[in-house]
Amino acid sequence: MTIRVAVAGATGKMGKLALRLIEEAPDLELHAALGRETPLSAIDGADVAFDVTHPAASADIVRHSLSIGVPIVVGTSGWSAPRISEIEAFRRELGEGAPAVLFVPNFSIGSVLGTAFAALAAKFFDSIEIVEAHHAGKVDSPSGTAVRTAELMTAARGERGPVAAPHADQRARGQLVGGIPIHSLRLSGVVAEQRVVLGGDGETLTIAHSTVSPSSYEAGILLALRRAPEAEGVTVGLDALLDLGISSDR
Amino acid sequence: MTIRVAVAGATGKMGKLALRLIEEAPDLELHAALGRETPLSAIDGADVAFDVTHPAASADIVRHSLSIGVPIVVGTSGWSAPRISEIEAFRRELGEGAPAVLFVPNFSIGSVLGTAFAALAAKFFDSIEIVEAHHAGKVDSPSGTAVRTAELMTAARGERGPVAAPHADQRARGQLVGGIPIHSLRLSGVVAEQRVVLGGDGETLTIAHSTVSPSSYEAGILLALRRAPEAEGVTVGLDALLDLGISSDR
Amino acid sequence: MTIRVAVAGATGKMGKLALRLIEEAPDLELHAALGRETPLSAIDGADVAFDVTHPAASADIVRHSLSIGVPIVVGTSGWSAPRISEIEAFRRELGEGAPAVLFVPNFSIGSVLGTAFAALAAKFFDSIEIVEAHHAGKVDSPSGTAVRTAELMTAARGERGPVAAPHADQRARGQLVGGIPIHSLRLSGVVAEQRVVLGGDGETLTIAHSTVSPSSYEAGILLALRRAPEAEGVTVGLDALLDLGISSDR
Amino acid sequence: MTIRVAVAGATGKMGKLALRLIEEAPDLELHAALGRETPLSAIDGADVAFDVTHPAASADIVRHSLSIGVPIVVGTSGWSAPRISEIEAFRRELGEGAPAVLFVPNFSIGSVLGTAFAALAAKFFDSIEIVEAHHAGKVDSPSGTAVRTAELMTAARGERGPVAAPHADQRARGQLVGGIPIHSLRLSGVVAEQRVVLGGDGETLTIAHSTVSPSSYEAGILLALRRAPEAEGVTVGLDALLDLGISSDR
Repeated sequence: MTIRVAVAGATGKMGKLALRLIEEAPDLELHAALGRETPLSAIDGADVAFDVTHPAASADIVRHSLSIGVPIVVGTSGWSAPRISEIEAFRRELGEGAPAVLFVPNFSIGSVLGTAFAALAAKFFDSIEIVEAHHAGKVDSPSGTAVRTAELMTAARGERGPVAAPHADQRARGQLVGGIPIHSLRLSGVVAEQRVVLGGDGETLTIAHSTVSPSSYEAGILLALRRAPEAEGVTVGLDALLDLGISSDR
Repeated sequence: MTIRVAVAGATGKMGKLALRLIEEAPDLELHAALGRETPLSAIDGADVAFDVTHPAASADIVRHSLSIGVPIVVGTSGWSAPRISEIEAFRRELGEGAPAVLFVPNFSIGSVLGTAFAALAAKFFDSIEIVEAHHAGKVDSPSGTAVRTAELMTAARGERGPVAAPHADQRARGQLVGGIPIHSLRLSGVVAEQRVVLGGDGETLTIAHSTVSPSSYEAGILLALRRAPEAEGVTVGLDALLDLGISSDR
Repeated sequence: MTIRVAVAGATGKMGKLALRLIEEAPDLELHAALGRETPLSAIDGADVAFDVTHPAASADIVRHSLSIGVPIVVGTSGWSAPRISEIEAFRRELGEGAPAVLFVPNFSIGSVLGTAFAALAAKFFDSIEIVEAHHAGKVDSPSGTAVRTAELMTAARGERGPVAAPHADQRARGQLVGGIPIHSLRLSGVVAEQRVVLGGDGETLTIAHSTVSPSSYEAGILLALRRAPEAEGVTVGLDALLDLGISSDR
Repeated sequence: MTIRVAVAGATGKMGKLALRLIEEAPDLELHAALGRETPLSAIDGADVAFDVTHPAASADIVRHSLSIGVPIVVGTSGWSAPRISEIEAFRRELGEGAPAVLFVPNFSIGSVLGTAFAALAAKFFDSIEIVEAHHAGKVDSPSGTAVRTAELMTAARGERGPVAAPHADQRARGQLVGGIPIHSLRLSGVVAEQRVVLGGDGETLTIAHSTVSPSSYEAGILLALRRAPEAEGVTVGLDALLDLGISSDR
């Protein structure tokens, strides 16, 4: 059975990548490629919508998709917890048969696994530090993935409380997020890397992810598009689709 | 409440470490320290036994401990699956109230977590290779932990089948275990390290563990001794005690 | 002053890269782009020739370039020491004014520096191991750079003799080159990496190089093309052009 | 021939290490072990003095040693450039036969080589960042070795000027030393590590040093003690004794 996909943001980098993947995959078919001027009704009749547009445009696309009963995978950035809650409320109003929404802040399976493992390990160690490196052109720091990783690790520590990062007021000790120091490198010759280092008595555990090309998103995009038609409710994060068998109560 | 521990193998390196930990921990107390000549009856009356002896001696200690109703943590090496099955059968014959046995091939929490994460990630990547480094004096290769990691990863891939390690017949490509190449470094200036590298389209995920001192075993020993009195059945591996929330059907 | 470059092998990957670099550089100008059928006389009148063809074609191009007085940078692979000696003899026969030949097995400045540092450090450590990782499609192992690094390190140890790599007969211990174990990983998600690990009492020194794109050759190609017109004699390796201030008697 | 060594600071950690090394080395002999109360005249008659005391005590010991004609290896910290200049002036006044002074801020050969290579490589790359990790108990950051490495790298760039570290005002971007961001990690399970990452077009070169035990100082201490009797003038840094063949005009 073929899954017909409507791509919103088809002229952007992620949109073009999606078009190519859909063309190459035998089980996917392009239903519509939406640019900035295309009416949202072009989504109607698709099996799944894929939104990779801009924060300002994304909410309307998600609401339209839900209204017409098309499940949607959202790769657009800027979806904070309060904004996601609004979509959940909107979806509840649509009643029982409302389609699924998958918010995917990161399509790299390796990165998503790395963050999940870091959170699982967080409560077993005295010390945690994150080092991320990106190309020299990245203007913000720390990276969104590093911030999200630190937040999930801090939450996962629960009763154990935040790590005691010593001398965190010193300039070389990085930026604290949830009590965890993050160190951001900006370098020529690097695409994207993250290392989470967990230190305990006499040992360290390091979980490192490295990206060398945007093809690292491909497997995650395909996974999300294939799973969305049968998915239910509102899901955040690719890890929910990975069947890790990790019980999560986030 | 204080847990009284009987240590079998008290004059060995791990035994001495256990004696020190028991002395330092407010909730643990030494019940008996057994050397090679001490009668096994010295274990009687303990809340938990800790066996760090030799493969030839270990089975008798485990059987004695089970017979007298004392749960036991087994850190002695050489417990293969068939030998463990024998203990399980022996324990079943004792009936319902029989105490727990925890076989712990590795007391380092970081190492155990690293192996568990590697197994969880194994099915998501095309390529897997393991690089382990130990001090120059280690005579065997690959390390037991690397072999166990490779076996668990291969098992975890399930339907996806073994990784396709290209050109594995070439001498520099390492030793295959379960289809996964293992590379063993033996170096001055290293205690023990393991890196599992998983490669997919455009990305790698690396799970690395590094030991700098035997104190890396301490947290794992304490955890096992504290959990054993309430544990049930026969358990293999420290990960079973870590409450990772990973559903496991091993 | 503009340097006019004749590129032999202009339709290959390296040739195309050179054409682009020449077009972008204000001080370089394309004199001729030679394909397989172009007569070698197209080189005549250039300030420097750049040979990135095939082992079978390269020698004729080098000899022609020398005969007509055009210095040449040779990036074609397969130039063994005996073959280079023949060119040296040929060049001597041409007399004093003969132009320079630069054989460059590797145009990546980072890789060349890494190898040079590894050789400098080799005599200070008890243990040396090399781990290289390349994309899964690379058919040979160990990599040429790893072999060259091991050979230079062994030569640099001089009186200290080869490292004592323990248990090198074991399959997981890699392939020995000059007594140094080389471990080759072949993985999706990796372009090219090399780590040289040197171990001594209580410490390790690691020299690692990582490539994420062929643009890593650009700086080295430009350096070689700009230096060749004033160079003298026959030179092997980009390091000779880097003015490291390292006295070398190779 | 046996070298008789006078150790000042014999009751400290480095002093005790020196006493053990002298006892084990067939070519070294203890001339005197000086504690806080021992008169400096105990140094008289030694072949070499070894000062591992405190910044406040060190200058007097160096001056006494020079006055009585005993070459001295100084491992005490706190010797800034101006203080070393004073010793140079004092030594010149003593006339031609004055013995050598070796100031050694770091006895680890691996660390010293790492810093030397980082300085050699500094002028070839667009981006430089330093990441150092030490045990959680280290109170200051960045480490002295990291600061010294950054300073030497900046000096070595010469005309190329400092690296352009982007967005260095952001908290996660570390502390700038000579324009180079330094990131300091403080972790359980780590003794001492330093990674210098140099990034250029499409590639990175990483020079990493890792210490797992104080035995990493042993080879450097022995080298300094054996070389001091024949050394000349005032030397700073173990690299000056390593015969790297690097021409240095520091």
